[in-house]
Amino acid sequence: MEISVSRKAHFNAAHRLHLPHWSDEQNKSYFGTCNNPNFHGHNYNLIVTVTGMLNEETGYLVDLKELSKIIEEEIEDRFDHKNLNLDTVEFKDLNPTAENIAVVIWKLLRAKVAAELRIKVTLYETERNFVEYTGN
Amino acid sequence: MEISVSRKAHFNAAHRLHLPHWSDEQNKSYFGTCNNPNFHGHNYNLIVTVTGMLNEETGYLVDLKELSKIIEEEIEDRFDHKNLNLDTVEFKDLNPTAENIAVVIWKLLRAKVAAELRIKVTLYETERNFVEYTGN
Amino acid sequence: MEISVSRKAHFNAAHRLHLPHWSDEQNKSYFGTCNNPNFHGHNYNLIVTVTGMLNEETGYLVDLKELSKIIEEEIEDRFDHKNLNLDTVEFKDLNPTAENIAVVIWKLLRAKVAAELRIKVTLYETERNFVEYTGN
Amino acid sequence: MEISVSRKAHFNAAHRLHLPHWSDEQNKSYFGTCNNPNFHGHNYNLIVTVTGMLNEETGYLVDLKELSKIIEEEIEDRFDHKNLNLDTVEFKDLNPTAENIAVVIWKLLRAKVAAELRIKVTLYETERNFVEYTGN
Amino acid sequence: MEISVSRKAHFNAAHRLHLPHWSDEQNKSYFGTCNNPNFHGHNYNLIVTVTGMLNEETGYLVDLKELSKIIEEEIEDRFDHKNLNLDTVEFKDLNPTAENIAVVIWKLLRAKVAAELRIKVTLYETERNFVEYTGN
Amino acid sequence: MEISVSRKAHFNAAHRLHLPHWSDEQNKSYFGTCNNPNFHGHNYNLIVTVTGMLNEETGYLVDLKELSKIIEEEIEDRFDHKNLNLDTVEFKDLNPTAENIAVVIWKLLRAKVAAELRIKVTLYETERNFVEYTGN
Repeated sequence: MEISVSRKAHFNAAHRLHLPHWSDEQNKSYFGTCNNPNFHGHNYNLIVTVTGMLNEETGYLVDLKELSKIIEEEIEDRFDHKNLNLDTVEFKDLNPTAENIAVVIWKLLRAKVAAELRIKVTLYETERNFVEYTGN
Repeated sequence: MEISVSRKAHFNAAHRLHLPHWSDEQNKSYFGTCNNPNFHGHNYNLIVTVTGMLNEETGYLVDLKELSKIIEEEIEDRFDHKNLNLDTVEFKDLNPTAENIAVVIWKLLRAKVAAELRIKVTLYETERNFVEYTGN
Repeated sequence: MEISVSRKAHFNAAHRLHLPHWSDEQNKSYFGTCNNPNFHGHNYNLIVTVTGMLNEETGYLVDLKELSKIIEEEIEDRFDHKNLNLDTVEFKDLNPTAENIAVVIWKLLRAKVAAELRIKVTLYETERNFVEYTGN
Repeated sequence: MEISVSRKAHFNAAHRLHLPHWSDEQNKSYFGTCNNPNFHGHNYNLIVTVTGMLNEETGYLVDLKELSKIIEEEIEDRFDHKNLNLDTVEFKDLNPTAENIAVVIWKLLRAKVAAELRIKVTLYETERNFVEYTGN
Repeated sequence: MEISVSRKAHFNAAHRLHLPHWSDEQNKSYFGTCNNPNFHGHNYNLIVTVTGMLNEETGYLVDLKELSKIIEEEIEDRFDHKNLNLDTVEFKDLNPTAENIAVVIWKLLRAKVAAELRIKVTLYETERNFVEYTGN
Repeated sequence: MEISVSRKAHFNAAHRLHLPHWSDEQNKSYFGTCNNPNFHGHNYNLIVTVTGMLNEETGYLVDLKELSKIIEEEIEDRFDHKNLNLDTVEFKDLNPTAENIAVVIWKLLRAKVAAELRIKVTLYETERNFVEYTGN
């Protein structure tokens, strides 16, 4: 029996959308107020969904305490109360759009979550905008 | 890398569920209080999800400002503060069930959103009832 | 010990904001799209709060089953799936603004809830707009 | 046209995670505070999603009044205000993890919902933890 | 300048409403399904609001890290994943209604929060039922 | 009849908590991760509540279109997608705690909202932390 289990987490961070090989005019025109050189910020809400075969002995797909610990150590501790552009190696040369943040989170989790589990990352940048990435 | 981006929107409208080729008794029996000839109404919450290949230069799947503008012009301006049965051409001869409203919204967006993006429409008629349509 | 207990309820209704002694131009200018002669509608979310002295024997302020029954019979059955302007006596000669709906609900409940309990009505017309009335 | 319709429901229940063939130490170590022999409890929020072909005459996938009645009779009446371990036959010999509860709900609904509709069960144990089961 | 600061917390617990000096018939008739001898349970959501004079040097009313620690130690550690009737001294001889739980939480916090701050406790037993207590 | 009307709004901003007359060690110890010199950020959710006498002719306390315009011009345009410390005159010499932001918003609104209306500002810094200020 294949089943999915999801866990919500969150982190608060500052960011700026900017491409260094574009002119300031291009950046401002394309990214608008998200290009503010002094940064702005968000409460990012994250849903991590793992999918695999139910362990019929325990009735668990996965021990949520372990999954929560991975999310805390790999994602929340890394990004919470940080400036994504200045304080993280992941976005030193990568534009911190919601899409790219979701892909980075998926890769960080993929390295730690058991290989037999598929992973989906849902990232809310605001209550009205969110992205989903499944690694496909 | 395939990714999905979602945007929430909403509109407030009146409607009545009614089939003109059914008798009044059939309509009342099948559609219940939703058949009220004087109409009732809802705050419709809409989630538009587009799926496609991430633009690896910009880190965007799609410019959300553009997607929001399409949703505003095609859906919100058309249906907000309207009587779906009386004020819109789309439901002149089509029963405005949540299912049909979702299909109509999908078709209106399909005509305006870039063809390489798949579209999913999720429409909440109330907090407890919602429908999803993907065009398949 | 004074304590407050609140119960949420909801109803879906159509309405139109309109003053019969104003010209059509005045009405349209002041009430905007809410003046649509064909009506529009909302999912109204209602919170009824009653305040009084805790019954120290039972640990209840009020039996919530009884309060819920009053709300259902006096408010939900009366307004749900109705056109407020056309289907209700309360708004036959009263403009169904969120403010007036809250006042009407407060009066309907006041007639049925035990006199030693104070009543507060909070009415959400949309997720972003709401009113509160305490009878003062 | 294939479409999905979802209905939210809920029930409040007590439960304890425990495997009778494990030692008390194993149970306590693996299930943590969820192994409390005196039970703890949750407000379970349930989303039932059915998918099938739109009835192009009525504009309904399914009559939501009927689906709501099935959910009420098969799930809410069975589990609401119950101790899952002590009061239900379903969990007499089955560990009431969120995963197993979702599978049990799916099977109970599968026996009552029209065979041409696919069913997905989403069960929130808390606001931050939820599971999904589709019967595959 | 007087200001209020609120912090949300939660705990999951089992309980049973029952008065030992009432007959089983009285208890069952008055408390209904909440009188189930095998218990049921809830996800309790708690909002603690403290009110006092803004510290104009720091711009804080209170250090939220300290307030959160008090809530965690005094409330969450005490009640989370517990059976309120069997596992806690507070409800050994007190009926664990939402009203009484709110009063108990208020008293536990009152003993630990600085005396110059007023305290309000808002306790959600379900998404639709909640109580407020201010110690007056 | 006295009544309250509330309107929700939001803005996304970066900030840093820091007192220039304190040492770096004091700042870091007291404000913790909120003292990050590179800033972090939030989605601020704002509820503006105005209270006054119902206009019995129109059924409005206040024209919400006008109130929304004041909130948009005075608050959202000023703070959205900004670095509160670097981009605003209001927080050039004032620590941008949630408490201080609420007080600043209240003062900005007080200057524009009709004097016969009382104003309450509720500001959510995260879903779990919020402040209220009424000008008293």
